[in-house]
Amino acid sequence: MNASTAWWASPAAAIDQAARSAAEVRQGQLTKPPGALGRLESVAIRLAGLQGRERPAIEMVEIVVFAADHGVVEEGVSAFPQAVTCEMVKNFANGGAAINVLARTLGASLAVVNLGTVVEPGELPGVTNRVIAAGSANLARSAAMTVDQFESALKAGREVVEQGVARGMQLFIGGDMGIGNTTAAAAIGCSVLGIEADEMAGPGTGLDASGVLHKAQVIERALKLHAGTLDDPAEVLRILGGFEIAALAGSYIRCAQAGIPVLVDGFISTSAALCATRICAGCADWLLFSHTSAEPGHAAMLQALTAEPLLDLGMRLGEGSGAAVAVTLLRQACTLHAEMATFAEAGVSEG
Amino acid sequence: MNASTAWWASPAAAIDQAARSAAEVRQGQLTKPPGALGRLESVAIRLAGLQGRERPAIEMVEIVVFAADHGVVEEGVSAFPQAVTCEMVKNFANGGAAINVLARTLGASLAVVNLGTVVEPGELPGVTNRVIAAGSANLARSAAMTVDQFESALKAGREVVEQGVARGMQLFIGGDMGIGNTTAAAAIGCSVLGIEADEMAGPGTGLDASGVLHKAQVIERALKLHAGTLDDPAEVLRILGGFEIAALAGSYIRCAQAGIPVLVDGFISTSAALCATRICAGCADWLLFSHTSAEPGHAAMLQALTAEPLLDLGMRLGEGSGAAVAVTLLRQACTLHAEMATFAEAGVSEG
Repeated sequence: MNASTAWWASPAAAIDQAARSAAEVRQGQLTKPPGALGRLESVAIRLAGLQGRERPAIEMVEIVVFAADHGVVEEGVSAFPQAVTCEMVKNFANGGAAINVLARTLGASLAVVNLGTVVEPGELPGVTNRVIAAGSANLARSAAMTVDQFESALKAGREVVEQGVARGMQLFIGGDMGIGNTTAAAAIGCSVLGIEADEMAGPGTGLDASGVLHKAQVIERALKLHAGTLDDPAEVLRILGGFEIAALAGSYIRCAQAGIPVLVDGFISTSAALCATRICAGCADWLLFSHTSAEPGHAAMLQALTAEPLLDLGMRLGEGSGAAVAVTLLRQACTLHAEMATFAEAGVSEG
Repeated sequence: MNASTAWWASPAAAIDQAARSAAEVRQGQLTKPPGALGRLESVAIRLAGLQGRERPAIEMVEIVVFAADHGVVEEGVSAFPQAVTCEMVKNFANGGAAINVLARTLGASLAVVNLGTVVEPGELPGVTNRVIAAGSANLARSAAMTVDQFESALKAGREVVEQGVARGMQLFIGGDMGIGNTTAAAAIGCSVLGIEADEMAGPGTGLDASGVLHKAQVIERALKLHAGTLDDPAEVLRILGGFEIAALAGSYIRCAQAGIPVLVDGFISTSAALCATRICAGCADWLLFSHTSAEPGHAAMLQALTAEPLLDLGMRLGEGSGAAVAVTLLRQACTLHAEMATFAEAGVSEG
């Protein structure tokens, strides 16, 4: 791949500063002490700049869960068996997972993209099969993806965004499903941030202390193996990531290029965001962060992104679930911003 | 008043431990790693115990904003003029305030109870006039309320809850409007928690540093004036509170007695909760806390209540607005709990 001409290296869209300023003025006129709505004010102002209008709105929300298996699971890094990735894809298709429930309550669309699992789910309603391979390679022994595989994964992310843009999507949420993917995400975090594996590895779906220690050792081994080839963020993503993490990064980059705000989920999604913001100039402007994960390494990633997530509920599920929970906060921020009376309209004295 | 026979001293309803346990079992069966939904799990389990059913639901939400003026404003403790209390009551009646917007988005009922303002709002749609006096007395010079006034305020809170119970209310939110009420709430906090005024006084609607210092001095003076009469939580509420704070306490106590969960708002509401939980045995079981206010003294109050608010968005508006924002989290917790598939239903392997 040629970094300078690749689609993912094109810069993000510009923010509409005039709309942002108009929203800031309006916030100061609403019947409340200045700043009294806290983050709900700043989020509304930020969305105004992203949507290019004084009064933003978040109605059309699209959620896409990318699913894939990870070769690194053979190192014994997960509390759940690898078959669960496929089983959860079936659960998504049947509407029984957390993200299904949340999407329904939001009136958001939910699509699942299968990028390659060890056990094939077959044809399922609501699941698009874009199989790259039966899981990525074991990142502790080789690169997780070949160049072709990596480009296919990025493209899968790009394509769902382009379809959403054509439908009028106003907010994009990417979710992940992939047994073993906290190992890949933690390895990315270590590489990008220069942090030791034992500071970034966490329990994931439920490892005990010795399991976490082993996971950190696997990551440490991978970082040593690939030392010298990890100086480029796209290469970090290819070598240490996974199909769904690369697809998330591709989707974030395309959203930023297309001018669509993203609500980033938790640990896995943030590892994709770490790479995306380093691959695509201006991408960070388009990423809103939904929640702080219970996965301990997440805080360091968020800090590096100067991200201020809206929620801290101790969630650590993935699937886009934390972002889905935060959508109502964005909607409330927009509705308050649009519908509250001004001091002049209400005849209320200013302080 | 006779503390032993007063209605507000009757204990709270008991929690349904069987329903709580059943909900806990169900959470462990849902298709996610144990605990992966964080606070959304514990909230659903807690609501199950409060509502007495394995699958709780928060559909019928009632919001009542209590409005009143405060004599202590003559000490120069507020950034906004006192006329704003009445002006905001009119804004509530016209649907232009933050709480109106939030109530509409939630499909929640919103009522306003005017307990007595300096400028009379007159007859307004959606506003019940239960005027006790044209504001409470200046707590820095005398008790804020007479015994009769205090009992009337508590009763106003009790009555709205009883009306809500008759309508099938499933969650109660009390809000406050009263220029000067952060001074009263801070004075309550100091007295109940034994904290110095300069640790509890904050900017409220927007005081500068010298304004906060002056406010702390006013509170310090009040605490000295009333020293020796503040050893009973009901007396603290009567002497240092205000009509709307006492009404909030009365409403919380009646909810607890009637077995209705309360979602507590911010600084003012929490000062009412501090007193309510000390007046009525078991009241604390029925109080869920919605958010951490930007008002600096709130954290100490929350800590004393071992409260773990769901949100921390830097809000400091009152009106019940922070609680209203958090309602969707309770609803999402309930819907996830009720609608997610179990491992057995979905055929997903357990860890």
